[in-house]
Amino acid sequence: MNYKLVFHILGMILRVEAALMLPAMIIGFITGGGDGRAFLYAAAITAAVGQALVMLPGKNMKMQARDGFAAVALCWIVLSLFGALPYVFSGTLPNYVDAVFETVSGFTTTGATVLTFIEGQPLGILFWRAQTQWMGGMGVLVLALALVPKLGEGSVYLMRAESPGPIKSKLTPRLGDTAKILYSIYIGLTALEVICLRLAGMPWYDAVIHAFTSISTGGFSVRDASVAAYGSLLIEWIIIIFMFLSGVNFALLYFAILRNFRAVLESEELRSYTLMTVGASALIVADLAFHAASGPSVRTVTDSVFQVVTLMTTTGYMTYDYVLWPTFSQVVLVLVMFAGGCAGSTAGGIKQIRVVLLFKNLRREVQRILHPRVVTTIKSDGDRVDEPILSGITLFFFAYIFILLAGTLVVAWDDVGFTAAFTASLTCISNVGPAFDVLGPTSNFFSLSGVSKIVLSASMLLGRLEIMPLLLLLFPSLWKKR
Amino acid sequence: MNYKLVFHILGMILRVEAALMLPAMIIGFITGGGDGRAFLYAAAITAAVGQALVMLPGKNMKMQARDGFAAVALCWIVLSLFGALPYVFSGTLPNYVDAVFETVSGFTTTGATVLTFIEGQPLGILFWRAQTQWMGGMGVLVLALALVPKLGEGSVYLMRAESPGPIKSKLTPRLGDTAKILYSIYIGLTALEVICLRLAGMPWYDAVIHAFTSISTGGFSVRDASVAAYGSLLIEWIIIIFMFLSGVNFALLYFAILRNFRAVLESEELRSYTLMTVGASALIVADLAFHAASGPSVRTVTDSVFQVVTLMTTTGYMTYDYVLWPTFSQVVLVLVMFAGGCAGSTAGGIKQIRVVLLFKNLRREVQRILHPRVVTTIKSDGDRVDEPILSGITLFFFAYIFILLAGTLVVAWDDVGFTAAFTASLTCISNVGPAFDVLGPTSNFFSLSGVSKIVLSASMLLGRLEIMPLLLLLFPSLWKKR
Repeated sequence: MNYKLVFHILGMILRVEAALMLPAMIIGFITGGGDGRAFLYAAAITAAVGQALVMLPGKNMKMQARDGFAAVALCWIVLSLFGALPYVFSGTLPNYVDAVFETVSGFTTTGATVLTFIEGQPLGILFWRAQTQWMGGMGVLVLALALVPKLGEGSVYLMRAESPGPIKSKLTPRLGDTAKILYSIYIGLTALEVICLRLAGMPWYDAVIHAFTSISTGGFSVRDASVAAYGSLLIEWIIIIFMFLSGVNFALLYFAILRNFRAVLESEELRSYTLMTVGASALIVADLAFHAASGPSVRTVTDSVFQVVTLMTTTGYMTYDYVLWPTFSQVVLVLVMFAGGCAGSTAGGIKQIRVVLLFKNLRREVQRILHPRVVTTIKSDGDRVDEPILSGITLFFFAYIFILLAGTLVVAWDDVGFTAAFTASLTCISNVGPAFDVLGPTSNFFSLSGVSKIVLSASMLLGRLEIMPLLLLLFPSLWKKR
Repeated sequence: MNYKLVFHILGMILRVEAALMLPAMIIGFITGGGDGRAFLYAAAITAAVGQALVMLPGKNMKMQARDGFAAVALCWIVLSLFGALPYVFSGTLPNYVDAVFETVSGFTTTGATVLTFIEGQPLGILFWRAQTQWMGGMGVLVLALALVPKLGEGSVYLMRAESPGPIKSKLTPRLGDTAKILYSIYIGLTALEVICLRLAGMPWYDAVIHAFTSISTGGFSVRDASVAAYGSLLIEWIIIIFMFLSGVNFALLYFAILRNFRAVLESEELRSYTLMTVGASALIVADLAFHAASGPSVRTVTDSVFQVVTLMTTTGYMTYDYVLWPTFSQVVLVLVMFAGGCAGSTAGGIKQIRVVLLFKNLRREVQRILHPRVVTTIKSDGDRVDEPILSGITLFFFAYIFILLAGTLVVAWDDVGFTAAFTASLTCISNVGPAFDVLGPTSNFFSLSGVSKIVLSASMLLGRLEIMPLLLLLFPSLWKKR
C-alpha cells in the first residue's frame, strides 16, 4: 500500500468533514441547545488531525487499485470515528460505541438508531445526524472528487470502490465532471423535496431533515414516530415519490433530464425495480385485505406502498408498525430488503441489476445442460456483460449472505430470538434501518450489546462499500509498504 | 427429450419400487395392522403402470445429458406419487397431498412429517416410511444401476444428476461397479448399526428402522419422542457416530476400508466437516453452560453434540427440544443446516466442499484487487478445480438461497411467524426434517396448508437432486420430441 498517498487522502477527507460540521455548529449555537460547543471541539480536533495527515512529508501520488480500495475503506472508518465525536461531546450518546454506531448508521444511510428519545435531542445534533446520511448517500469521496483538485488518474479507483453497483456508467469522459453532474442532480432533488414538503405543511427544519434523509435513502427522522408523526397522506406520498426516485440509477435520472427517454424506458434494472415495487405493494394490500373485515382503504394502500418503498429503497421510515402485520406481508418486506434499489442510486441492498443478472446467469447454467456445446453471452440493456463481472456478482451474493448469517450469529448472543437477530443483521448489511420483531420500527438498537453494535457497524460499512474494499483490509499483503 | 428412453427408465424404476413394497407388505400381513392389503394394492398398481411403460413400443437407447437429468427428475416425482399410495390405502394419511409430502420427505431423506401420532400407526407403514429414506439415501437410480442391466454409456448422466456434490469421484472405471461398491458400504454400515443398536438394548424392529433412517440421514423414527424416547446415552452416542459417518463422502469411507488413510486425512472437505461439527458443538455447550447455574454435564454435552450432528448431517432426530435453547444455540443449529454434510454422502445441505470452494473463490476475488495481473487457479485436495465447476457452485448457492426465500414466502401465508416459515423452508431444501419455533422438533407439518405442503415437497426434491435437474423441467425446449 502507498501509505503516504492514503494518509494524504485521509487527511483531505477529514478536513472536509470538519468543514461540514460547521452548519450543525451554527444551528447549535443559534438554538442554544448546548451542542454548539460540541461541534466546535469536534471540528477542531478533526481539522487538526486532517491537517497533520496532509502535511506528512513526502508525496507519491501514483495510485494503484489496491490503494484506491484501501483509501475508501479507511476513509469511511476514520470519518465515522471522528463523526461520532459531537454525539459524545454533547452528551447525547456518552458511550463512544453508541456514538460510532449512530455515525456509521448515518454515513452508510442505514438509519438504525440507538437514540431512545429523539424529540428531546438538541437541534444541531439532529441536523448532523441527518447530514451524515446526506453526505454518505452520494458518497463522501465522490464529493471530494467534485470539490478538491483532481487526485490524478487514480481517482477512478476511488469512485469504483465507493459507488454502488457492478457496472459503472461513465456519463462524461472526465470523472470529476461525472461527479459534479451526479451531485447537481442530488442537490436538485433535495431542494425540490424541501419545497414540496414545506408546501405540504411540514416546518422548514423538518422539511430539510426529511429531504436529506429520503434523497440519501437514509431514514433518520426528527420525530420519534418517524413520518407517521405528521399524519398527512400528502406528505407520505411526496416522500414515497422522492424515495422511489432516489432508488433509481442517477445516470438514468440524468438521461431523463436530457430528455433521452429511450435509455430510461429500456433499462432492465428500472423495469425490475418498478415491477418489484408494484408487485410487493400489491401482495401486501391483498394480504391485509384478506385478514381485514373490509376491503382495502386509502390508508392501508398508502401504508403498504410506503412500507414497501421505504424498505426496498433501504430508507427505513415508518408510517405503520409493520411487525403487527401478518407473517406473509412481513416476509414480502424482508424480501425487498434483500433486493434493494438500483445500482448507481443512493439505495443499498444487493441491487436490482445484480438480481437480474443472477437470474440470467442461472438460466444460462440450466440451458448448458440442454445445449452443452453452445456458448452464450449474457446481455444487460443490449450490452454484453463480461464473465469476470458475472462471477464477481455471484461471489458478491455469497459474501452478502455469509456476512448476513455471521451477523445473525453475533446478534443472537443477545438472545433476541431468531427473527430479530436475522433481520437486524439484514437491515444493517442492506443499509435499511429498522428490523423486525423486538427490533422493529417502534423499537431501536440501544438494548444490544457493545459487541453486537460493533459488528453491526462493520456490517453497515460492508453493505455500503459493497464488501470488497473492507475485505481487502483483512489481507496482510495489503499492508506491505511499497 | 428422448421420450421413449425416459418412459422406459420410469417404467423400470416403478417395477423396482413395486418389488420394494413387498417387505412392508409382509410385515403388514404378519402383524395384522390392516396395512398388508394397502401394500398389495399399491404394489400391484405400481407394477402394472411400470410394466406398461416398459412395454411401450420402440426403443432408442441413446441418452444425452438432458435425457439423463430429465429422467432422474421425473423418476423422483413419479416414485413419490406412487410411493404415497400405501399411506392413502391404509387410511394412515387419507389426504393424498399429505401422503405425497410424507413420501417425498422419505425419499429425499428429509424426515419432516405430517403424521401426528406415530406410535399408533401400523408397523408395515412405519417400515415403508423408514425404507423410503433408506432407498432415497444412496439414490434410487444408483440402486437401479447396481441391479438392472446397464443402460449404456448414458448411465453416467443418471448418476451425475442423482448423486450429490459438484465433483464426482469415480472409484472404478465402470459406473455399475462404483454403484455396487457404494451400495455395499451402505448395506454394511446399516447392518453394523442394527447390531450395535440391538446390543445397546433397542428392540430388533426399532434397531432396523433407526439404522435405515440414520445411515440415510433421514430421521424418521417409530417413536413420537424420536431418539429421546429410549433415554439411553449409549444409544444416542451410537447414533451420533453412525450419523457422522453417513455424512462423510462414501468414497473416503471406501478408501478407509482399503486402508488408504492418507486420502482420508488429506481431504479438505472431511476436515471442514469435522471442524464444523466440533466447533458448533463447543459453541452450544458453552452457550448452555453460560445460561445454566452449573457447568456442562454429560447430558448437556450429549444433547449438544447430538443436535449438531443430527441437523448438520441433515438427519433430524431429536433428543432435546432445541427451540427451548437460547437464540445463540438455535442460530448455530440453523447455520449447520445450511452447510450440511459432505458431497457423495447421504447428507443434504449445500455440502461442505461447496462451502470450502466458495470461500476459496471469494478469497481469490479479493486477491484480484491486490494483484490484478496474476491468474490463479483454485485447488481442492491438490487438484485444480475447473472454472465452470466454480461458477456452477456459486450459482448453485444463489439458486439455493432463492428457493429458500421463495419457500419462506409461501409458508408465511400460513401465518406461522418468520422464524417458523424461514426454517421450515430451510429444513426442506436442506433435507433436514424439523424446523424451529412452532414447527420445532416436538411439532410437525400437519397444520400447514396444502399449498405449503406441495411447495415444500418441491423444495425437498430440489434439495435432494441439487436443483438443476428439476429446474430443467421448467424449460419448454426440454419437452420437444427428438
